[in-house]
Amino acid sequence: MNVPNPKITTGALPASRKIYVSGEVHPDVRVPMREISTHPTASEAPLPVYDSSGPYTDPDVLTDIRQGLPQLRRQWIEARGDVESYHGRDVKPEDNGFVEGDRLTPEFPVKPAPLRGKDGTAPTQLAYARAGIVTPEMEYVAIRENQLRELSPCHRDGNDFGANIPDYVTPEFVRDEIAAGRAIIPANINHPEIEPMIIGRNFLVKINANMGTSAVTSSMEEEVDKLVWAIRWGADTVMDLSTGRNIHNTREWIVRNSPVPIGTVPIYQALEKVNGIAEDLTWEVFRDTLIEQAEQGVDYFTIHAGVRLHMVPMTVERVTGIVSRGGSIMAKWCLHHHKESFLYEHFEDICDICRQYDVSFSLGDGLRPGSIADANDEAQFAELETLGELTKIAWAKDCQVMIEGPGHVAMHKIKENMDKQLECCHEAPFYTLGPLTTDIAPGYDHITSGIGAAMIGWFGCAMLCYVTPKEHLGLPDRDDVKVGVITYKIAAHAADLAKGLPGAQRRDDALSRARFEFRWEDQFNLSLDPDTAREFHDQTLPKQAHKVAHFCSMCGPKFCSMRISHDIRAEAQKEGMEAMAAKFREGGELYVPAPETAEPAE
Amino acid sequence: MNVPNPKITTGALPASRKIYVSGEVHPDVRVPMREISTHPTASEAPLPVYDSSGPYTDPDVLTDIRQGLPQLRRQWIEARGDVESYHGRDVKPEDNGFVEGDRLTPEFPVKPAPLRGKDGTAPTQLAYARAGIVTPEMEYVAIRENQLRELSPCHRDGNDFGANIPDYVTPEFVRDEIAAGRAIIPANINHPEIEPMIIGRNFLVKINANMGTSAVTSSMEEEVDKLVWAIRWGADTVMDLSTGRNIHNTREWIVRNSPVPIGTVPIYQALEKVNGIAEDLTWEVFRDTLIEQAEQGVDYFTIHAGVRLHMVPMTVERVTGIVSRGGSIMAKWCLHHHKESFLYEHFEDICDICRQYDVSFSLGDGLRPGSIADANDEAQFAELETLGELTKIAWAKDCQVMIEGPGHVAMHKIKENMDKQLECCHEAPFYTLGPLTTDIAPGYDHITSGIGAAMIGWFGCAMLCYVTPKEHLGLPDRDDVKVGVITYKIAAHAADLAKGLPGAQRRDDALSRARFEFRWEDQFNLSLDPDTAREFHDQTLPKQAHKVAHFCSMCGPKFCSMRISHDIRAEAQKEGMEAMAAKFREGGELYVPAPETAEPAE
Repeated sequence: MNVPNPKITTGALPASRKIYVSGEVHPDVRVPMREISTHPTASEAPLPVYDSSGPYTDPDVLTDIRQGLPQLRRQWIEARGDVESYHGRDVKPEDNGFVEGDRLTPEFPVKPAPLRGKDGTAPTQLAYARAGIVTPEMEYVAIRENQLRELSPCHRDGNDFGANIPDYVTPEFVRDEIAAGRAIIPANINHPEIEPMIIGRNFLVKINANMGTSAVTSSMEEEVDKLVWAIRWGADTVMDLSTGRNIHNTREWIVRNSPVPIGTVPIYQALEKVNGIAEDLTWEVFRDTLIEQAEQGVDYFTIHAGVRLHMVPMTVERVTGIVSRGGSIMAKWCLHHHKESFLYEHFEDICDICRQYDVSFSLGDGLRPGSIADANDEAQFAELETLGELTKIAWAKDCQVMIEGPGHVAMHKIKENMDKQLECCHEAPFYTLGPLTTDIAPGYDHITSGIGAAMIGWFGCAMLCYVTPKEHLGLPDRDDVKVGVITYKIAAHAADLAKGLPGAQRRDDALSRARFEFRWEDQFNLSLDPDTAREFHDQTLPKQAHKVAHFCSMCGPKFCSMRISHDIRAEAQKEGMEAMAAKFREGGELYVPAPETAEPAE
Repeated sequence: MNVPNPKITTGALPASRKIYVSGEVHPDVRVPMREISTHPTASEAPLPVYDSSGPYTDPDVLTDIRQGLPQLRRQWIEARGDVESYHGRDVKPEDNGFVEGDRLTPEFPVKPAPLRGKDGTAPTQLAYARAGIVTPEMEYVAIRENQLRELSPCHRDGNDFGANIPDYVTPEFVRDEIAAGRAIIPANINHPEIEPMIIGRNFLVKINANMGTSAVTSSMEEEVDKLVWAIRWGADTVMDLSTGRNIHNTREWIVRNSPVPIGTVPIYQALEKVNGIAEDLTWEVFRDTLIEQAEQGVDYFTIHAGVRLHMVPMTVERVTGIVSRGGSIMAKWCLHHHKESFLYEHFEDICDICRQYDVSFSLGDGLRPGSIADANDEAQFAELETLGELTKIAWAKDCQVMIEGPGHVAMHKIKENMDKQLECCHEAPFYTLGPLTTDIAPGYDHITSGIGAAMIGWFGCAMLCYVTPKEHLGLPDRDDVKVGVITYKIAAHAADLAKGLPGAQRRDDALSRARFEFRWEDQFNLSLDPDTAREFHDQTLPKQAHKVAHFCSMCGPKFCSMRISHDIRAEAQKEGMEAMAAKFREGGELYVPAPETAEPAE
């Protein structure tokens, strides 16, 4: 059972149960999936769906945020024999913004010694893949990607723009994709709690949700619940973009309780440590921050090493200048010191840190466009080329890499982004924010960007960073986070369908069959957000009897096209067209008696 | 002033005023636009934007729903000398479902005699265009499309997939597009109240909102306000899909108070007249209904004449059969009688009616796919070919035509829909519902379909029929209608940008400049939904002072990338790169004092 904690959202989704599928290469691999069952009249096997929600939705697992999640990967990591435990960096007052007493977020109760690669070895999934090893993590994601699609024949249909999507994902395929740099498994050896997941063009499109401390008063429970809430609805990774105080301690609570990879932008914390003065940032402060976060278990770092001095003037004539926080900080630093940033200069040193822990790179797009007018300009593409150079350096160090992308881009310029990224960055996975396809709808930027996200996902983008309705305006609340996540699950799934990812259409088909057969409960339960679907239905037709009604409130019982289709189908199957016409002549009726409340309607 | 009526939403949008631009060919043409003004510090001229909201947003115009709107076109229609007034069809009890007494919606107070073409002439915009005439309606839409873009140089950028979008729309261009069948101006001569608008691939992408009586108790005021509310947010046409009782009288209130074209599906009312028994439908009942509605002023009819007997079996193996109400009614009729529908058999007769009033055709896609699985199948494309044949027949009768399209279509199959439509239907304008790009998100189908709508709009679709969050689940309320309209305005605008429609990007640029310059009020006012943008902002930073703050709640006053960009730009413009670096060395700070409430945040 989940330990009752009113601040953490737990429990299964409707009509769903957690199942675990075991590995063959590694029998201790147990991959969670969610099985959605349908009404017995459907005579359908339960539908397995990808499940990012972790143990919080498994009533049989004990979750207690003071203990953290079970360390699934601990044994796998240690069994490889290439890591060592050591006395890690001590927490310093500046790690939490010098907060003391009551205002200091309590430390997480348990603090194990961190692990790192022994004797300079790189305990990274990339190094293993290159050595031909299929790790438990690789088998895990192979099983997870398939969602048991091997059990049902897969209709293949779609346009993958030259990707290489297999009928069925094998552990070896995963290994080869990672070895080629086309996919990553973000999985810090100090984050053994994660359920491994893969980011790459030949796999399911993933989504990221951002979170971060929003006020000094927010409790650990609230921070952990933000995470739990986002993954409940489908976030595949979460970025902790906290700034301000208590960064270190809050992050510890998040990482220890996160079954999904956690990403950060280390420059944010480094800047806190120099009191917000960009020019005072140094390699030493930054390096210390990287180690601090790597030891905690952060799975991927956004590093804005592609912002180079000569690119800054390219942004001066833009409508919206530099809109990346990290990018603008580094631009200011470069200009002040009139030299290349320490991120660029020390990139190999950064790699040397990341490889010890298997922290993946998310190479930041510090010069991404912040408006339709600035899309695909010289600054943006100049930086992309630099990111391609850095990718090769990171790969040479056995580090996993993905590349961040824009931003604000009109539809006709989206594909160029994807094509150039594949070319410049040697097929390293692309990870974009939206893109927003117009600037004119603040308050609806989940939609302006959901359009672009679906398209770039189709074109080959591997992960989509969500945008909430509050983008550009304010802080997302719980509802905004959910709307952002669901919108991006839609975009990712629409992309999977269009790419022709085998099995992706099973859920659409199951839901459409439920719709056609008036199995209302099944229609709700198979949807991305069963609660909202049920609530919307019940606003018009609240009675339980309406959940089995062979009509809905849109047309009412009259004129129901689907019911007429059933009549047609039934006749056709029974008697053939000729007989069917004769039968109809006896006089079927479209009208059936119905209560006033179910009047035909708009 | 607008006559106070608490049930009708009137008044200008924030920072907006109505302007009127006069015609040159026809000086009595006065085209309304909305001008959004910005803060004096911006030193920018007010931005003119397309305005579908009618006189309801003009405080200087008297609107009173008991009088109806001013008859702008009356004089134009009569001046052409080709119409006659006649004693129209008398209202029959079955027109309102035999409702009597209190339950009968009152008749509209004024009932002028209808007009029709005299002596068999076709008073249609197509006939005039073919005769080389530039009507006032044509000049009106030319001015309206330009939104004064001739006053500011237009950056052209985009991919229009072989469309023929001019730098600047002239009345002659409008005429030629209509003559070629590539565009329509839906404008029944009995609906002189409309502000003419054009639907075609070489013009701004338009959107339609659906409405209809939802209960016997809804008042005329409520029905009219549904219309006024939808056009306030940008609906370019409205379809009245009412069924049940009081259809006739309700429609009269709507048409008399609508500045946008009204579309209907006449088979719905015809079916009411035969008590809901599809097999009892006859050409005579249908014909009578067409005349009834044409005399009232309905601007376009959805006619499902493309559903032919031999196509019905093609739908039997579908996952969701026939999902169009009109399509399923006709399929049932065809099967029962085992012959082609009276819509198909009498299509020329239907044209003869429509041409007398200039009712445009919206040829219905009765066999559109209702699920991802059924997209682009044999049934759908067979019907599309028939619609192409019917288009030619209608054109031969001087009738204006557009073609309806799907539905549910995964992204990779959308372009095929557009391409086939252009080919089969000889470039007649396409008008699609969505399409929805996945079936798995009931409750969010404005988003699943907004993605498809933006794409097909880009590919050449001329009008997008909105989908609300309640699609598949229940009746849209006022909020749902607004969300549906705004979502579709986003899709249409994203399409305009991607097509490279000259001037479309002006609003994005103006809003982005406001964003970059921290002109918060301007950012709200330039957006599609100023009220929501302002509300979202104020949830986090409610104070008036924050509306002029040079930061927002996302990053707080620290790390503001845009502020840093300003610093960079200011320096670059003043001193050049070398000097700029020296200056920065003196020590700019990213931190500024700020209240606790503006803490850095997620």
